[in-house]
Formats: sequence, structure tokens, C-alpha cells
Amino acid sequence: MYRPEIKVIDCTIRDGGLTNNSHFTLETVREVYKAVCAAGVDYVELGYRNSKKMFSTDEYGPWRFCDEDDLRQATDGIDKGDTQICVMMDAHKADPDDILPVDESVVDMIRVATYVKDADKAIRLAKAAVAKGYDCCINIMAISIESGPTLIEALQQFEKETQALAVYVVDSFGSMYSEEVHFQIETFKTHLKTKEVGVHFHNNQQLGFANTIEGIIKGANYVDGTLYGLGRAAGNCPLELLLGFLKNPKYDIAPIIDVIGRVIIPLREEIDWGYHIPYMLTAVRNEHPRDAIAWMEREDKHNYLDFYKELAEDPE
Amino acid sequence: MYRPEIKVIDCTIRDGGLTNNSHFTLETVREVYKAVCAAGVDYVELGYRNSKKMFSTDEYGPWRFCDEDDLRQATDGIDKGDTQICVMMDAHKADPDDILPVDESVVDMIRVATYVKDADKAIRLAKAAVAKGYDCCINIMAISIESGPTLIEALQQFEKETQALAVYVVDSFGSMYSEEVHFQIETFKTHLKTKEVGVHFHNNQQLGFANTIEGIIKGANYVDGTLYGLGRAAGNCPLELLLGFLKNPKYDIAPIIDVIGRVIIPLREEIDWGYHIPYMLTAVRNEHPRDAIAWMEREDKHNYLDFYKELAEDPE
Repeated sequence: MYRPEIKVIDCTIRDGGLTNNSHFTLETVREVYKAVCAAGVDYVELGYRNSKKMFSTDEYGPWRFCDEDDLRQATDGIDKGDTQICVMMDAHKADPDDILPVDESVVDMIRVATYVKDADKAIRLAKAAVAKGYDCCINIMAISIESGPTLIEALQQFEKETQALAVYVVDSFGSMYSEEVHFQIETFKTHLKTKEVGVHFHNNQQLGFANTIEGIIKGANYVDGTLYGLGRAAGNCPLELLLGFLKNPKYDIAPIIDVIGRVIIPLREEIDWGYHIPYMLTAVRNEHPRDAIAWMEREDKHNYLDFYKELAEDPE
Repeated sequence: MYRPEIKVIDCTIRDGGLTNNSHFTLETVREVYKAVCAAGVDYVELGYRNSKKMFSTDEYGPWRFCDEDDLRQATDGIDKGDTQICVMMDAHKADPDDILPVDESVVDMIRVATYVKDADKAIRLAKAAVAKGYDCCINIMAISIESGPTLIEALQQFEKETQALAVYVVDSFGSMYSEEVHFQIETFKTHLKTKEVGVHFHNNQQLGFANTIEGIIKGANYVDGTLYGLGRAAGNCPLELLLGFLKNPKYDIAPIIDVIGRVIIPLREEIDWGYHIPYMLTAVRNEHPRDAIAWMEREDKHNYLDFYKELAEDPE
């Protein structure tokens, strides 16, 4: 029933960090790490390793930088099992010099996030990561506005010039419908003969999990989820739904639902991630959710008609 | 881009009535009716017309019975446009004698909800509805546990013995994945040569909207949604997402998002519909959500591990 090649990546702390400037407490990160390891999930992403030259350490918490000391505090004394640790580096906001040799790090894999236009920066980072001994993936963001020759050139470069294990379809705007997922996966598979395809979907239209299933059906083997969907704006594919769908007996959903009830649900008092009408409206327009995120900060955030009119007046 | 045959049914008051024993205020029903009509949605379902012999009028509100007087109060003075009014009758909980001749009623269509085992009761009701001048549909509930010869016999009977416009795939447990949706729609289409196929999906696994899209792709032309997904337990396919997906220019999403913000969001203070871990767990087990609904009434409702263990101990 199950496909053993499939690798599940929990990115709760990393993507969730976009909701709170990566200010999770150490205890929260330890609880998430412990549960994901106990569940037998293949990877856990503990944050970004972005550059302190580009992000203020006053404004952003430790999981935006993932210093080795912080990672050690988050993971010490917890049984890692078969779970590997990864961090994300933004192609345009990270410094290759921040990558230590792998034997000085608790990190196993580096995921490079990039826009198509920054493909060459992504390749530079991916090469640096592999040269220092890490596994590596490349995540192409905002894929719902990319389909032409520039995307294809980037895929061909990633195939030829990097040793990335997987290249990801990332629907940053939460805009894609199943037929568009199928189309992108086919494009990726056409140009990535030696690499796996990954999928990372947002939940603006309640399609994060559904699109992940569609990705799997079309052959994607690297799949992202977060606990209870915690992530920017409408959030992500919920990890617990993914584990319920995958039939691989190595996964245990019990520690996942346990930590959701104890640690993630209480975060809802501070962070209002999940499905909301403004996030759905930007997704239907295939736009970045930034205007919707700003609207959700307002007192009159449920006045959806005014937000709708504001969007309609925007120059497209 | 769009398929003109598709008919959208809003069943907010009917399915939402399962969360509050159909105790919506008259003002709420009028606001929903007005918005759905203004949006150009094809049908609006204002409740059940179930038998007062089987439901206590002390316990249940007016939208469980849909007396003509109540329906008139809900609709008088509001421009109906092209929207038609329907009510649902449960095959095993409704009385054919409660159907008035159509010219004495504000109702245009009767939807008969049935389990496969009650197919003959459904046919009796469907015939009574058509004999009294109504359009009629048949909704087959709990379809995720039906696929064998008994289902096929029921479909063949509905095809031969009724004038139903459509027969629905109803995933009462919110259990189905896209490939199962495809399979059921194909089965229905094989045996329903003169009728449309309809779809009604629940959101236990955040697949209500996604499965509706998959139904449409496979040819379903009657599709159900509710405002902001309001409905029993995890709720339904959100109507606003459906309208965002369908490209038919006759639909206007503006009145829908407006009424959601003004009328539906405030209902959340009394009704906690939507995605919750217990609903997801019963769906993964392909079970009725009743145990999960009971669990969500408890003080310690976020102790998901105990609920998980309780389910695991149940005899299957």
C-alpha cells in the first residue's frame, strides 16, 4: 500500500516562525522536535539559517538564524531516532559563509529556498552546502506565477549544476488547484531526471493537504507538513493528515496529536494562523498574502467586503 | 472556461442546523437567504422537512420542520432572483404526507437523504415529491462504507423508478480521498444514465473543497457548499471557495463574503464547527463522527491522545 521512497519533512518551527519572527520558546522547539522524532518523521526543520547582516537579532528570534548553540540546546538529550535535522537558507538572504563543516554541526540537510529569478544564488548555496558535507534540497517559491522558459532553465540548471536530492514545487500563495499541481509536477519531472520532486503547499483555499496528495499521486517523494498546519497566514499541509494518509507503518501519529493538543493548540492564543477569507481572496487572485496578512491585523478584519473592494481597486 | 450545467446548492441552514438542532434565528436565515440569492447561487436549502412525530418541537427549532409559515417569514420581501428553494427530507425520518402540492408551497425542490438500506423509503418520498409537482434529488449518505452490489442495486432502482434530477455522493464521515471520489463518481455515472451526479463532502480531513473539485472534474454537476463551511462537526465544502473556483460569471462572491463576516463569523461564539483532531481521527478510521462530537463537548477536549486510545480500544 505505501511507497517507501516518500520522505516527510516537518517544518513547523521554520514555516511557523514566519508568524512570530521565529520567537518560539526553547521549550516549544524541544517539544516539537521530540514529538516529530518519536513519530518517525524523516526530517525536522528547526528554522532558517539566514544572515544576521540581513535580519536584526533584536527583531528576530533564534530560529531565524539557527546558531549551532541554539540547535544543541533544542536537541540535547532527546532521542533522535532515524529523524534528520534540516535548516532552510533563503538564496537571497543567506550567506554561504554561515555554513559550518557538517562534522561541526547538528544539521544533516540544508534546504535552499529561492525564487526562480535567484536560481544562480540558490546554486551557489547548494554547492556550498554539499561541499561542506550536507545533503541539500532546493525549494522554488511562488511557483504559481512561474511556468515559462525561465522556470525551465532554472530546473535544467538545478539538474546539471547541483547535487540537490530534491527540487520542490512551493505554492507560496496557496493558489493552485489539482490540475495545476499535476502540470507543475510533470514539468519538474521532465527536467529533473536524477532528482526527486518535492511539494510544499499552503492552505489559503483549504487545499494544502489535498494538493500534497495530488503531488504524491504524480510522483513527488519529498512532502512537507506542519503540526496542525501552523505556518504563515493560512498555514500549511497539516502533518497529522499526511501521516493519516500515508500507510508506511514506520510513522506513529500518536506523539503528533499529543503535542498538538498540549503545545500547538495553546499557541492559538497568540497566533491566528489558518483559513480566513482575506487569505482565500489573495489566493484566488494568485497574489502574495501580504495584503491579507496586513488586513488580519486590523480591528475590523472581518469586514471582508472592504478588503475585497481594496483588492479589486489594486492595479493588477 | 466554465461548465454551464453545474448547479450550486447552498445548504448552510440545513447542514448547519445539525450543529444547533436547527435553532437559527429568523434574522440569520433571512440574511443567509438574501446573500445566497444575491450571489446568484442556484439553490438554497432552508432546512429539513422532517416529521414532528419523530422530532420534538420543544427540542428542535423551526428549520428542522420547515413549515410553510416559517419559510414565508424567512423569504418574504427578499428578491429571489434565479435562486430556487429546497428542503431536505430524511427517508427514514420524514412523512410523505408532509409534502403539500407545489402551488401551495414556497419550496421548488425536495432533496431526499437516505442510507443505501433505506432506498425503498427514499423512492417512496421521491415519487411523492414529483407527484406533487416538485423537482427532486436523492442524496446517498455514508457513501464511504458503500460500494458493493447493494449500492449498485439502489442506483439502478433510483435510475429506473424515480424522476430525481440528480443522485448524490455524500461523504458523511469526511473520509474519502480523491481516488475514492473518482471511483464513486464513475460507479454512479455507470448506473445513472438519465440523471446527474451530485457531490456533498465533509471537511474532517480538510478535503471538502478538494473532493468537490475532483467530483466536478469527473463530471458531477450538482455541488453542495455552506457559508464558511458551517455544518456538522468539521463542516462542509465552503461555498465561497467553490464560487472562487467556478468561473461562471453569473455568480457574485461579494454578498457571500459580506454575510460571512457579518453573520456567520459571530456564530462561532456558540458553534465550534471546523477542523479538529477528533473529527480527523474518526474520518481516518472511516467512522461516523458521533464519538468525536461527544469528545468535543468535554472540558479536556484537547487531550487528543486519550481520545485516540479510546477509539483504538473500540471493537471495530
